[in-house]
Amino acid sequence: MIRHVVMFRWNEDVTDDEVSATGRALDALPALVPSIREYRHGGDMGVNSGNFDYVVVADFDDVDGYLAYRDHPDHQALIAAHITGRVADRAAVQYGVA
Amino acid sequence: MIRHVVMFRWNEDVTDDEVSATGRALDALPALVPSIREYRHGGDMGVNSGNFDYVVVADFDDVDGYLAYRDHPDHQALIAAHITGRVADRAAVQYGVA
Repeated sequence: MIRHVVMFRWNEDVTDDEVSATGRALDALPALVPSIREYRHGGDMGVNSGNFDYVVVADFDDVDGYLAYRDHPDHQALIAAHITGRVADRAAVQYGVA
Repeated sequence: MIRHVVMFRWNEDVTDDEVSATGRALDALPALVPSIREYRHGGDMGVNSGNFDYVVVADFDDVDGYLAYRDHPDHQALIAAHITGRVADRAAVQYGVA
C-alpha cells in the first residue's frame, strides 16, 4: 500500500469558513477519484505548539493509484480553488506501508 | 480516533544505516506503548521532489492515548537516541478522525 501524507500551514488571512469549505471539498474527493482507498483529513487539534494547521492522509493500492489521484482533474481543481495562494508552508511524504 | 502525524528532514550527515536503525527502533515501539493502535512509518519513496524524508503516522483511541505515547519513556528515549540532533526540519499535526 502507498500512503500519501501532506500538511499545510495556512496564510494568516485564511478564515475558518474557508478551511471548512476546504474540508467539505476534500470529503467529496473519494467519490470522484476511484483509486483512493482511505482518505482522512483534518485540522490540528491544538495539543502541541508549533504544529502545522491541516493534514491529509490518503491510502492507495500502489504508486499508479497515487499518481492517478495526484494528477486527477478534480484533485487539481480542488488545489487551485482551496490550496494555491492560501498556503504559507507545505510538507509531504509518500511511503510504502505493509 | 486521534491520529498523530510527524515528518522529518534529516540533516545531510545522517546515513542510511542510521535511518534503518531508526526504523527498527520505531518498529519496536508499539510493543512498548500500549495505547498505540496503528503505527505506520517509513521513508519518502522519491516520487515527488521537495518532500520531507520520513513520516510517522500513529493512531490512538483518544487524546489521552496520544499523550501517553508522546510522554512515554521509551518514546522519549527513541527521540533522544534517533531524532534529536539529526533533524533539520520537523512538521507535525494531531487530528481527530472518524
